[in-house]
Order: sequence, then C-alpha cells, then structure tokens
Amino acid sequence: MMNYGEALNLMFWDLRTGAPKNGVEQRSEVISQLSADIFNMSTSEEMRRYLEELEQQEGLSEKTRKTVAECRKEYDRNKKIPESEYREYVKLQAKSESMWETAKEQSDFEVFRPYLEQIVAYKKKFIDYWGYEGYRYNTLLDMYEPGMTVEVLDRVFGELRERIVPLVQRIAASGKKLKTEPLLAYFPTEEQKAFSLELLKQLNYNFNAGRLDTTVHPFAITLNPGDVRITTKYDEYDFRTAVFGTIHECGHAVYEQNISADLIGTPLCDGTSMGIHESQSLFFENFIGRNKKFWEKNYSLLKEFADGQFDDVTLDEFYDAINESKPSFIRIEADELTYALHIMVRYELEKALFDGSLEVRDLPSVWNEKMEEYLGIVPPNDAKGVLQDVHWSGGDFGYFPSYALGYMYAAQLKQAMLRDIPHFDALLAEGNVMPIREWLTEKVHRFGKLKQPLEILRDTTGEGLTAAYLADYLEEKYTNIYEL
Amino acid sequence: MMNYGEALNLMFWDLRTGAPKNGVEQRSEVISQLSADIFNMSTSEEMRRYLEELEQQEGLSEKTRKTVAECRKEYDRNKKIPESEYREYVKLQAKSESMWETAKEQSDFEVFRPYLEQIVAYKKKFIDYWGYEGYRYNTLLDMYEPGMTVEVLDRVFGELRERIVPLVQRIAASGKKLKTEPLLAYFPTEEQKAFSLELLKQLNYNFNAGRLDTTVHPFAITLNPGDVRITTKYDEYDFRTAVFGTIHECGHAVYEQNISADLIGTPLCDGTSMGIHESQSLFFENFIGRNKKFWEKNYSLLKEFADGQFDDVTLDEFYDAINESKPSFIRIEADELTYALHIMVRYELEKALFDGSLEVRDLPSVWNEKMEEYLGIVPPNDAKGVLQDVHWSGGDFGYFPSYALGYMYAAQLKQAMLRDIPHFDALLAEGNVMPIREWLTEKVHRFGKLKQPLEILRDTTGEGLTAAYLADYLEEKYTNIYEL
Repeated sequence: MMNYGEALNLMFWDLRTGAPKNGVEQRSEVISQLSADIFNMSTSEEMRRYLEELEQQEGLSEKTRKTVAECRKEYDRNKKIPESEYREYVKLQAKSESMWETAKEQSDFEVFRPYLEQIVAYKKKFIDYWGYEGYRYNTLLDMYEPGMTVEVLDRVFGELRERIVPLVQRIAASGKKLKTEPLLAYFPTEEQKAFSLELLKQLNYNFNAGRLDTTVHPFAITLNPGDVRITTKYDEYDFRTAVFGTIHECGHAVYEQNISADLIGTPLCDGTSMGIHESQSLFFENFIGRNKKFWEKNYSLLKEFADGQFDDVTLDEFYDAINESKPSFIRIEADELTYALHIMVRYELEKALFDGSLEVRDLPSVWNEKMEEYLGIVPPNDAKGVLQDVHWSGGDFGYFPSYALGYMYAAQLKQAMLRDIPHFDALLAEGNVMPIREWLTEKVHRFGKLKQPLEILRDTTGEGLTAAYLADYLEEKYTNIYEL
Repeated sequence: MMNYGEALNLMFWDLRTGAPKNGVEQRSEVISQLSADIFNMSTSEEMRRYLEELEQQEGLSEKTRKTVAECRKEYDRNKKIPESEYREYVKLQAKSESMWETAKEQSDFEVFRPYLEQIVAYKKKFIDYWGYEGYRYNTLLDMYEPGMTVEVLDRVFGELRERIVPLVQRIAASGKKLKTEPLLAYFPTEEQKAFSLELLKQLNYNFNAGRLDTTVHPFAITLNPGDVRITTKYDEYDFRTAVFGTIHECGHAVYEQNISADLIGTPLCDGTSMGIHESQSLFFENFIGRNKKFWEKNYSLLKEFADGQFDDVTLDEFYDAINESKPSFIRIEADELTYALHIMVRYELEKALFDGSLEVRDLPSVWNEKMEEYLGIVPPNDAKGVLQDVHWSGGDFGYFPSYALGYMYAAQLKQAMLRDIPHFDALLAEGNVMPIREWLTEKVHRFGKLKQPLEILRDTTGEGLTAAYLADYLEEKYTNIYEL
C-alpha cells in the first residue's frame, strides 16, 4: 500500500509541475486504479484477518502495535459506511465542488446551498456510523488532529481571541502606515529562485532528499523520506509569495525528510497530524523567516539578488514591512496576526452546523457577523466571504482548526526550545539553523505517527495545549512594530 | 497492466531526470513491486483463462484478436521457462552486468568470459523451451523484430556491405578533410536548449503531449500517447550531441504521440518493433536533420543562438561538417555511413554464437577480424572492441540488428514518400515538416502494433526489405560530400 502510495504521489507531483495536458485524461485512469487498489487492500478480507490476528497478539513492538492501530482506524472508517451510500457521496462531492466553483464565480451562495446541505447531511450520517464522543464534530476533528476535541478548541481559541482581537483593534487605531511599496517592485523569477535556493540550503533542506519546482498552488509532497519535494510559485511583483511560500513548504518538507528511516513502509511514516505539520511550516515561516535576526543575516543577500529595489530601505523598515498586519477578507492572504481569527470564524460555523444550532442557509449572515466581531470588517459579497474556500464543497469539515493549532503548537515548541537553545536569535543571525532543525527532529520529526499531537506537546513542553505563548509572542512583536 | 506500466514509466523518467538520490533505494522497492504485479498478471491463471476463452471465439475485432495474440506471446514466453531456472538467470544477469562493467574498466575480456558463457548457455536453453524455426537465433530476432529471420538479414546485410564497404574505402583514400573545428566551439547549454526547442516545434513534436528534459543517457519515453517525453544532454563543446540527439528522440516520440487513440489501454498501443521505431528516429535525424535543405531553413537560426562560432563557415561547409564520416571503434559514436557496419560485426558474431560455430572465448579475436574486414580498423583493446556494449551482459542478443534495420526501413519509406511528396526537399527548406509527419502517421505511426514491421513495409512501399535505397542514398550523399 505504501509503495502504491509513492507511485501515486509521484503522479500528483508530476501533474502539478508540468505534465503535458493531453496525457491528463489517461493519467487520471492510472490514478484512479492505483487509488482503488489501495482502498481495496485497506478494506480487504486479508486486512481484516491481519488486524484480528495481530490485535490478539501479546508483546508486539510499539511500531507494529501502532501500525495495526492506524490500519484499524482506516479499516473501520471505510467499512462502517455502506458502500452504496459512499458511492453516492463521492458523486455528490464532484457535483458539489463544481457547483461551488460556479457559485463563487457568481458570488451567489444560493447556487451552492442545496449541495452543501446534502454534503452536511451525509457527513452527519457518516459520523453516526463512525460513532462519536461528546460532540459529533469531535469525530471530524479527530480525522485531522487525533485526540483533538471541541472542549480543548473552545478553551484555546477563546484565550487567543481575547488577547489578539484587542491587539488588532489597537493596530487599526494607531494609524501607523508601513513602507511596503518596495516589496512590490519588479523582481525577476530567476533571481527569486536563486535566492530561494540559497535560503533552502541555510534552512537545512536536504537537496539529496528533495528538489524545488514551480507550480500554481504550492505544496510539499513526500514520495519517501529520501525524496520530499517542494514546489513554489513566483510573483514577479511580490517576492514574498515565493520566498515565504518556499520557507513555509520547507518546514513541511524538513519534517518528513527527518522521520526515522525505521518507519519507512509503515503508515507511521508520515506527519502525525495536520496541526503538527502546520506547526513545522509555520515555525519555519514565522519564527525563523519573519524573525529580524534571520534578516540581519539575509537582507544583504536578498539585496544582491534584487538589483536595487531595497537600496533605500533600512533593515528595520524591511522587517516591519514583511510583518505588516491588517484585517482582510481572504484567509489565504491573511497575515500572521489575523490568520487565526479567520480560522475561528470557520470553526464556530462548523461546530454549530454539526451540533444542529446553525442551518446551512444561515451560513452567509453568520459568517459576516463573525467577521465583524473578530476582524472588524464585513465582506462586500459572498465570494469574498463564505464562498472563498474549497474545503466545505468536498466535505472537509474539521480541517480548518489545524491551521490555527499549528500556530499555537509552534509557539509552544519555540518556548520549550528556548530552554535548550537560549541563543536561538544568535543562531539565526549567523545563518546556523542546524541546531534548531536538530532540536525539532529530536522532539517532533523523527517520531512520525508514533506519537499523537498532544503527546508530542506534553513530552516536549511539559504542558497541555495553551494559546498563551502565541499570544505573548504576537503581542510583543506587533506592539514593537506598530509602536503601540 | 497498462496503467501500472504508465506509473512505472513515470518513475523511470523521474529517476533519470533529477530524482533526489536519497530516495532511490526506496523507489526501487516500488518499481520492483509494480513490475512484479505486471508480471504476475501477465502469467496468471486469470490470464490463461481469458486467453483460452478468447482464442476460441469467432468474430473478434482485429484489435481484440491482436491484443489476445500479444498477450499470448508474452504469456508463453514467460510460462515456458521453469520458474527456478528463470530466477537463477535473473541473478546471473545482475552478476554478469556488474562483471561486464569491471571487465570493461580493466579492458580484460577474461573477467567477463565465464559469465557470458553462462548467459549464452541459458539463452540457448530458453530458445529450446520457446521453440524455433530454422535458426535458433530467429527466436531472438523475433522478440525485437517480429517476423525477422537470419535468411532476410543475411541477404540485406550482404547487399548493403557490398555497396558501402567500398564507399568507406574510397572516402579514406580521398584524403579529403572537412572543416569540423567550428562544431566544437563553446555553445552554452541554455542557447542549445532554446534552439532545440525551436527545432522540436518545427519537427511537429507536440508540446501539449510531451516535454523536453535533461538527462545523462538520452531517451524518449511514453506514459501514454498524450504524454511522450524526450530527454537530451548538452555538451557545451559539441552542440551536435544535443541537437541531433534531440531530433533523433523526437522521431521516436512523434511515432508514439501519433498512435491511434483507439489503441490506448491495449498492448498494441506501442511501436511495432525496435527496427520500425529506429526507422522513425533515423528518418528524423538523417533524412530531415542532416539534409542540406533543412539547414537552408535553420542555419541562420542556429547562428543566432550560437553567438559567432559559425560566422566564417558557409552553409556548404557546415553541411559537410555535420556529415563527416570516418571509421571509428565505438558504435554509439559512429556516423550515418559506418554505423550499419558496426551492427553487422555484432550480427555475425551473435548468429555464430547461436548456431554453435563460434565459442564465447573466441569473440575478441573474431570481433577484431570483422572490424578490420568491414571498417578497415582494429581496436587497440577489448574495452574499445568486444566489451564496449552493455547488451550481451544482460542477455540481449538479437537486439542489435534492429538499429541497422531502422536505417533500411527509413530509406525505403523515404523512397515511397517521394512518390506522394515529390517536393520533400522544398518542404524542408520552408520548415514545413507537417506533410512529412502526416504521411508517416498515415503509413506507420497510427497502427501501433496492429501491423508487423514487414507488413508496414509491404503495404507502404509495395516491396519487401531491401538495402538498395539506403545504399543509393549513402552513395549519392557521400560521393558529393567527399567529391569522389
């Protein structure tokens, strides 16, 4: 199954990095066959027998025990839904995704509403097949973030909101404008790429176990731990797209490059959760890539590649500019400070959909209310509001919280790291990321799925999940930048 | 099986165009699993039942009938050898290939001899399992060139040798030296690539169904007819490597891009033989790429990319230089005129090994005798002689003749094409390759394996295989260039 998965991932990578278009139709046949093969193996009689035999055995190694548990989870998830219902759902998904596209183009939620209603209804039914504890929504959370619950999220999102909503308001009130125009000057693709490659080396990305390619929607993808590829895109009038995008994907890739080789060929050879994965990419992007010390090392290098566009910009001005924060409508364009608020809007809505306190038809108005409450702005239309993300159209509920969890995990890990590496900032100023990466490998990467997210957090920091460190960091950072 | 094959071919392409080295070991696991899956399917009980049922049915379509015949051939080839023997043989192959490498490095045939003896012995035994008509060697020929026999090859190789050996001798005697130094001036990779891309467009390579990448040992590879990729390599001190290599691979690729879409998903969706495949690459490389009219169109373009290196070289001088011919030791470096003679050396030796008139231990001395007889030169050592090619170490006997057949097929097809397209040269001078490519598609490409090689030749030219047209062409061309 892992071997077929590697072949599939190579095909996905290839399709997104320059596969010729006339071959795509036939390629999708190949992809659907290999996907079906994996699905059939994961739900086969043979798998059932393996699982039953192994679950009864004593004295299995931790690796085998957890491999069995992963396969059991997958087996049950796939077996508990009646096949005919699942097939109908897959058809609905395709239709729903296409109707979402139309709805977004026309900025008309009503076009999408009937499909989303059916998707939610199916998902509720599936949760009943799968079973749940406490909230129905917990089952969805657990799919992306094993062990995560509404109770925990309500607490930490509440804590975080209380601290950063006022901060966002104070920034708006300050009226301070940062000098961001130089960031938008012409910066040719080739030079951006050369600079990105330099940064990747510095960030401990292993080029013997990966490569950098160009794509439309950037991603990192793992074929095996010796082959974890990064993709990025280049905007010649905004170098931040490629540079911070590459640093972000580098964090994902460095995670998978450093999973213990011992786990290869098992389903444990993967990031432990979406949230922990995002914690690694955000650690790289924000705690390294948007740190002033990092740019003490790299700003002069950037200037060499940039051919004059930053000649009149001091390091301080540059640092402030790349950390500009202002409320905006679109999640994927949001900055480090406001991003989590976009997630909380979605979390509140998803939770309410699944505890029955919100109907699909009321999503647009409640979306707008929450945006005003958290970010102080109201989208001018649904395309820039409730219709902006693809996730719901495919039934991906429970996924969004991982993004915000990633920020919190990263801040907590950073806090713990400072106990072992108090000279963190000095290392960045030297361009020496190795000890930082090694610490993350020691505490996080190498375990793959051997540890659950909250287990990693507990073992590494001695604490449960808290928003406090993220809030502290954001308060300190933005108070300085905006001189509050 | 075809779907798995597409996934495999993508993995091969990827490994040869920049896959990170640390991932290769795990990748080879994936490759060996998918290869085994295909093998197992092709020899399964299920396959046996399909074949037996279908072979008894009346009124099958031509496509189904020939698909069944292909699968039967594959099934019998794999089933007739006892499994234990085949496993031993595969082990021997690996050992033999590695010993060949050592032997070549040390230029010591004795290191390789015992392994080659075993390979030949196995191959003889396999032929007895498979069965043969007339010569044992016919069975090997048929694997690469369905329908080809020793009788046919003896005749056409004899004809060809009689005409071109004297020609080679006359060139040597003429003492004429061509001005080839400008070909070896510095020509940066990027410019060579840009020029190659221009040529590919002109040559009707469809970039919506392919892409050009860089590799060490150039090849074309088919994922499906909508995705046929070319690779090339760049020598900055000899632009011919990339330019003629790319044109050659383009011929292979254009063949597979134009196989009828109707054959997708069947084993007929492939070139019909190695020889016909080579006829297409050689048609492009020689009848188009080394034609003076082609360079009337493209020489000024080449000069634009080449930045001065041809400023003092007239088109006539350039044309002569790219067609230089002189006997050399190494097959893969041989020119258009002498190449077939290298093949004949190998053919005579292979034939004699399998009819029992030659022992492996005598290969080096007979090799050298044949080289002297056909090319008038004797290799200084076995590395530049009998040890130069990898083929025999893996048991690939019967493959070499296809290369020379490709030349003959191409010349015969050209002759037939002139009846329909008498203004062939004028089209090249205009850069209009479309009618030429369309003719080849109509007569050759679209059929895939629906027609056998000699069937294509007969249907298209009205004749059986003959060396006459190739000999005529070479005589006329080289008599002019060397003013004989």
